[in-house]
Amino acid sequence: MADQLRIGILGFGTVGSGVLRILKNHEPKLNQVTGTTLKVKKVLVRDLKKQRGSIADGVELTMDADEIINDPEIDIVVEVMGSIDQAKEYIKKALTAGKHVVTANKDLIALHGNELVALAKEYNCDLYYEASVAGGIPILRTIVDSLASDEIQKVFGIVNGTTNFILSQMTNEGKSYSEALKEAQELGFAESDPTNDVDGIDAARKMVILTRLAFGMNVELDQIETKGIRDLQQEDIKMAERLGYKIKLIGSAIQSESRISVDVGPILVPVNHPLASVQNENNAVFVVGAAVGETMYYGPGAGELPTANSVVSDVITVAKNIRLGTSGNVFGSYQHETNLAEDTKVFNKYYISIEMQDKTGQFLALTKLFSQFDIGFDQIIQQPLSSDMAKVVIVTHKITKAQQKELINAFKDTNEMNLLVCFKVMEGN
Amino acid sequence: MADQLRIGILGFGTVGSGVLRILKNHEPKLNQVTGTTLKVKKVLVRDLKKQRGSIADGVELTMDADEIINDPEIDIVVEVMGSIDQAKEYIKKALTAGKHVVTANKDLIALHGNELVALAKEYNCDLYYEASVAGGIPILRTIVDSLASDEIQKVFGIVNGTTNFILSQMTNEGKSYSEALKEAQELGFAESDPTNDVDGIDAARKMVILTRLAFGMNVELDQIETKGIRDLQQEDIKMAERLGYKIKLIGSAIQSESRISVDVGPILVPVNHPLASVQNENNAVFVVGAAVGETMYYGPGAGELPTANSVVSDVITVAKNIRLGTSGNVFGSYQHETNLAEDTKVFNKYYISIEMQDKTGQFLALTKLFSQFDIGFDQIIQQPLSSDMAKVVIVTHKITKAQQKELINAFKDTNEMNLLVCFKVMEGN
Repeated sequence: MADQLRIGILGFGTVGSGVLRILKNHEPKLNQVTGTTLKVKKVLVRDLKKQRGSIADGVELTMDADEIINDPEIDIVVEVMGSIDQAKEYIKKALTAGKHVVTANKDLIALHGNELVALAKEYNCDLYYEASVAGGIPILRTIVDSLASDEIQKVFGIVNGTTNFILSQMTNEGKSYSEALKEAQELGFAESDPTNDVDGIDAARKMVILTRLAFGMNVELDQIETKGIRDLQQEDIKMAERLGYKIKLIGSAIQSESRISVDVGPILVPVNHPLASVQNENNAVFVVGAAVGETMYYGPGAGELPTANSVVSDVITVAKNIRLGTSGNVFGSYQHETNLAEDTKVFNKYYISIEMQDKTGQFLALTKLFSQFDIGFDQIIQQPLSSDMAKVVIVTHKITKAQQKELINAFKDTNEMNLLVCFKVMEGN
Repeated sequence: MADQLRIGILGFGTVGSGVLRILKNHEPKLNQVTGTTLKVKKVLVRDLKKQRGSIADGVELTMDADEIINDPEIDIVVEVMGSIDQAKEYIKKALTAGKHVVTANKDLIALHGNELVALAKEYNCDLYYEASVAGGIPILRTIVDSLASDEIQKVFGIVNGTTNFILSQMTNEGKSYSEALKEAQELGFAESDPTNDVDGIDAARKMVILTRLAFGMNVELDQIETKGIRDLQQEDIKMAERLGYKIKLIGSAIQSESRISVDVGPILVPVNHPLASVQNENNAVFVVGAAVGETMYYGPGAGELPTANSVVSDVITVAKNIRLGTSGNVFGSYQHETNLAEDTKVFNKYYISIEMQDKTGQFLALTKLFSQFDIGFDQIIQQPLSSDMAKVVIVTHKITKAQQKELINAFKDTNEMNLLVCFKVMEGN
């Protein structure tokens, strides 16, 4: 059991230098907490000639990852270089060489987490990735800690800062989707190709990770019903407001009778619900446990310092585990057969907006369509769209996902009514 | 280093039996997480003859605390019996006997935490008390973990469930203070003598604990400016709403230039702020760190199962520390000289409501009073109270606590204007 643990960092971007800075500045406190000394030995850089200032004092810089991965003195490898394939190769090599790994790489963990976790176990190494979901919020740690003494029933919340920023701008400032997206891009909250964020793919990847940890189940991305916010109209936000809701992009994983239902999409959240007041680029995740009840964790979803802070928390845990002799044992060690919930067992209220001809008998036809599938109305608003067209907004009673799918299919077969959107409605508060 | 850790529990009430149940039901997971076996050996009960059911199988029951405290086989003592003096005596004896202690006893920790922490350090023992603040929310752990790699700037939030329940009822249902209190008492959220809750004393005790952990400073209860909700009028809640705020009882500890300002009182929270949507008996605490930014932790403030769950989390930490050899080292080990902020360095907006005669020149007199102390207006509402009396509500610009105190004193010297309430106004969102 080493009195000193040596760290190699792959990547010297903003997160990498943040990690280095925190480890250096907080050395006495970190030593006290872990009962050992943490020292950064080497950092992988792209350019050896770049000036780094005093932050790099006492640290070897290298452009060759193997010099870190094959260094027998290095105990912990921190991967903050991004990308998928290259990072995966380095992490596999590091684990195979018996090194513990901390990564902030969400895409890598969502796509190849299982393979890497299995490898980590095979080599009795730790693999931690707190920063991969909800940046500065210690949500993965909380889930793993909760699981030790509780049974998690639901994990849901706002796990994508970009879309929450866009939705906040649309809601608070009345901007259109494209205006809000443009602003998010200008402020650096959205990439020039925003597909991964606005189509809900990023949120779905985070739900893969959360589901794996909270329920021990491996869902694939294509098993997660994923809707984005690209088609969301200012009109829907106003309608939701009239009905007492705000629209948020929510990722949700709910267990019932040992089966899991995971989805991502715009959801109507009651205006008094804590998730409704999560503004701009912030994230917030609810964890509901049988014993603890409803808890929520809120904070910045991304950012260099929050991310670096989460990486250092993982490094602390790895250091403790090394000293405890419990390496290779946590984050994703809880495994369970993956059973998806049947559509007839998943219940929700839905917000449905429809465009239809404004003529006698049309509303009757609409009512008949709904009653055909035994779907009742909770709230209805009708308003004219033009001289001969009307918009109707309906909040249904609680129905099954199966009923909802039948209804959506039925709309495809009618010519006179056009289904615009169908969003889940959250209950509570 | 023992392969098995033995636990003694002082108290077999709802929390005590909850702890026992969780430790039994989750044994394999707990063993995996701690790398050791946790076994409850003895439980202190009031009545040996009471039927306990299968939960007590394999556990020795005793009515003599010394049988637990002096048992050389017992490593960890869990105190969930409540009361102050008796519990303090047992905990001191247990620490002196070299046993690690977990307690849920907030009053004890607020009043005698320093003495007990010093004793724990002297005997190289752990002393944990996660359940003492915000029941099921892992807030103390989060603060201690954050401190290892960050610098905390502010800790504030809703830390008393009883008053938040009463305020929710007054806000959502339009009830009067006494109606809402009565309902809280009927539902078991408030005691028959509600003084500790409604006068903010319970919240202040929690702020003592939070301040000690977040800033390493020991504030005494009488150094915390504490206001309760007893005099809060339905009228103020409605006025606050018109101005865009909800009234919440907030405990707040803010550090600036190495000095601390701690207070408890009703505060106007912007309606879009996450704290504004914390309903009923729930708690929510913001922790603001230099690196991580604003994070919030929300959940049930009390309750048997959430409390038992937090106690078990502490037991897990103690078990890990024993195995790490880092006992006697955490929760309150960060110490700093206690420096209170000067009144001229603490800035806030204030909500001030005034009753005054509705006659010509009166508003001018009011304006002069404020301008005398260089206090500007942000928002003003005036409305008639009766034929010759008016109510004026003012939100000030940001002023110092010194200015606010001068203003309040000046009101005492006037006969024609009566200051009803003066509450802080929270900014942001």
